[in-house]
Amino acid sequence: MNPRELIERKKRGAALTEGEIAAVVADFAAGRIPDYQMAALLMAIWFRGLSRAESAALLRAMIASGRTLDLRDIPGPKIDKHSTGGVGDKISLPLAGVAAACGLRVPMVSGRGLGHTGGTLDKLESIPGYRTQFGEAAFRDTLRRVGATIVGQSDDLVPADRELYALRDVTATVDCIPLIAASILSKKFAAGVEGVVLDIKVGSGAFMRDLEPARALAALLVDLGHEYGRRVAVLFTRMEEPLGEAVGNAIEVVESVAVLRGAGPPDVRTLVLELAAEMLVLGGLAGDLATGRSAAARALSSGAALETFARMVAAHGGRLAIEHPSCGLELAPVVARLAAPRDAFLEGVDGWEIGMALVDLGGGRQRKEAAIDPAVGLRWRVRVGQRCQAGDVVAEVLARPGQDTSAVLHRLGAAVAWGDEAPAPPALVLDRLPFRAAAV
Amino acid sequence: MNPRELIERKKRGAALTEGEIAAVVADFAAGRIPDYQMAALLMAIWFRGLSRAESAALLRAMIASGRTLDLRDIPGPKIDKHSTGGVGDKISLPLAGVAAACGLRVPMVSGRGLGHTGGTLDKLESIPGYRTQFGEAAFRDTLRRVGATIVGQSDDLVPADRELYALRDVTATVDCIPLIAASILSKKFAAGVEGVVLDIKVGSGAFMRDLEPARALAALLVDLGHEYGRRVAVLFTRMEEPLGEAVGNAIEVVESVAVLRGAGPPDVRTLVLELAAEMLVLGGLAGDLATGRSAAARALSSGAALETFARMVAAHGGRLAIEHPSCGLELAPVVARLAAPRDAFLEGVDGWEIGMALVDLGGGRQRKEAAIDPAVGLRWRVRVGQRCQAGDVVAEVLARPGQDTSAVLHRLGAAVAWGDEAPAPPALVLDRLPFRAAAV
Repeated sequence: MNPRELIERKKRGAALTEGEIAAVVADFAAGRIPDYQMAALLMAIWFRGLSRAESAALLRAMIASGRTLDLRDIPGPKIDKHSTGGVGDKISLPLAGVAAACGLRVPMVSGRGLGHTGGTLDKLESIPGYRTQFGEAAFRDTLRRVGATIVGQSDDLVPADRELYALRDVTATVDCIPLIAASILSKKFAAGVEGVVLDIKVGSGAFMRDLEPARALAALLVDLGHEYGRRVAVLFTRMEEPLGEAVGNAIEVVESVAVLRGAGPPDVRTLVLELAAEMLVLGGLAGDLATGRSAAARALSSGAALETFARMVAAHGGRLAIEHPSCGLELAPVVARLAAPRDAFLEGVDGWEIGMALVDLGGGRQRKEAAIDPAVGLRWRVRVGQRCQAGDVVAEVLARPGQDTSAVLHRLGAAVAWGDEAPAPPALVLDRLPFRAAAV
Repeated sequence: MNPRELIERKKRGAALTEGEIAAVVADFAAGRIPDYQMAALLMAIWFRGLSRAESAALLRAMIASGRTLDLRDIPGPKIDKHSTGGVGDKISLPLAGVAAACGLRVPMVSGRGLGHTGGTLDKLESIPGYRTQFGEAAFRDTLRRVGATIVGQSDDLVPADRELYALRDVTATVDCIPLIAASILSKKFAAGVEGVVLDIKVGSGAFMRDLEPARALAALLVDLGHEYGRRVAVLFTRMEEPLGEAVGNAIEVVESVAVLRGAGPPDVRTLVLELAAEMLVLGGLAGDLATGRSAAARALSSGAALETFARMVAAHGGRLAIEHPSCGLELAPVVARLAAPRDAFLEGVDGWEIGMALVDLGGGRQRKEAAIDPAVGLRWRVRVGQRCQAGDVVAEVLARPGQDTSAVLHRLGAAVAWGDEAPAPPALVLDRLPFRAAAV
């Protein structure tokens, strides 16, 4: 396999064979293909795309680059959820509790926040003691005993994805649908899940601003799942204003516990129920979405979901005082407020700017290696379509003493649009793409 | 300047500014931009192209990456020739002698052979003692005293081009017209030439198979020369069968001396006269091409061109016995012959295959660092359109004792097409693009 020849052929629009893709991924992961040749190939792929067959070969090659988990000895359907990332997206936390309480096994391998989106691992690490790096034995034991476990990616799980992602990040080749699809699914399938629900976020607070590329990604994800013999379903959800009120790390754990208690913001609760219903259908524990929704709602009202979540946190070494209003977590004590400038309807919110305001506060990061402050955050108090009076609190900024919040408040103020007429209430779930049963 | 952002913008089809291009070339040459980011940018440029303004900025940035020579203190017009490379293309050797004998000053910075094309430096190094690396003082002195000097590129002349070319070579981004144009002209202009004639080869033995991309390259070269205040003219010449009979290194020096003696193959002589005429017009020493051709022909018949060439070789330390039939050079002693298989017309020749047959023999190289054997070579004895009888010698292979020539003969045999009707005699000069005077 001559890498230059492969680059040349892809540049000309030819399809690479399964064997060629397997070799290029294996050789790259082993350091036998230099970064500069892979960078050229990635850019050629950005322009020419990959066929379904090439994408499937890429998925298989990436999975084969590392260790794969076989979870078949653990009883129950192993079903996961993945979100393409948004602002205030703490869904994984309550969802893991709900889905496991309903009988699913949820082996969740999560990531960290970057840029305007938060990361599940960062949120969990705001819980004192919570270990996101877990040996395989502890992972299996927690999955079997508690039903859910949320961990960081271990070094030997799809190492090719880590290398490829780092290179894509610095060569402007992240936004490429076949590369995104293979990256998402390789980590899920290598971790042993039988099915995964993908929450593809669309809007100003998401990586995809429009529904059209989101549909292309979703179609490929479903096809690749089908091809690989795993179950994939997709929800397209709106990401403009933050999901829920809380944007940050500790503050999102607190809101997650509120949702698990059966309270919390309605949009978070709704999305947890919708995603849990999809997961239950994928796992064969509900015949349809309505049945799945009811089961999920019962897990919330009975307290089973909260109990399961608390047991999961404890299994990971986390100390969470769920009976306490702030769960015993430290929240930054200074509260600065953004007020409505006039009597008006909230017409729209630029979610990206809100995510970046959290980065400005120190609660998110611009570079992968940066540290974050789990105690700072935002409370987003109004919803699009809501009528405010001049002076009403739109958002609260939780900051450290001495921290200058004026720039953050200014950024937040510039991220909202006000109008004199009530806008149409936006839908949360924009569309869905159900699991397509493999014709086995 | 953030390289990722520049890659992103070029990927989306935006134009980069002069300042951005200057910074990216300078930073890359200084090692501040890693190869993988430059590789991604080069591939994005392959797909999106560069505007005239971007190409001009690239040319300027590349020239600025190293030392530039100012030859204005040397009397006479400093005019050079550059060929895009072909099989049997020894033109630079006799042409340097002819042009200098006519009063031009020819400061020629040449390269080595790679793949199917030979390199002028390799040919000159088959002359014992010829030094292709020369200090600037010796370069100037030879140019002033003899009128022509052919040297290798010094490390400090357009270092960015060397780095960029090495990267393009392994990332399949060589075949990109704006990158080719900037690479060619930067070396010529940095070496202080006032004008250059470009011999763009078209056909199976050339990098460009068709006239259309050759025209695009030529138009850009003329524009960039205009923009930079230097004179550029272009000849498009056919490259299917080898130029002349000799294909190799020492053997091409021998043929060059024959041409300088006023003999030699007609196509080599014709092209030398045509290119010399263009150079004389560019340098202002001839008012039109016909006058230029006559002056060049006189330089051949008078012996002045041969004498100039011999003095140049001597100035470089080379020992060439021009009175001897093989100029005192070692030629491989075993001669294997390819015979015509039947009574027929030679219809066509795949020049690429002939160039690669020389590589197989050891007279060319596949990798830049490979060594070559200057004594092996080919004599191509028939011209397209010529009628042969079965058994007539088509080509002779000059090999070392013990070398197996059967595969080479087989390759040569497969590279020729025979027919029963006389094909139209192919033109050598396909078209030309004259110098466009700058509106100063």
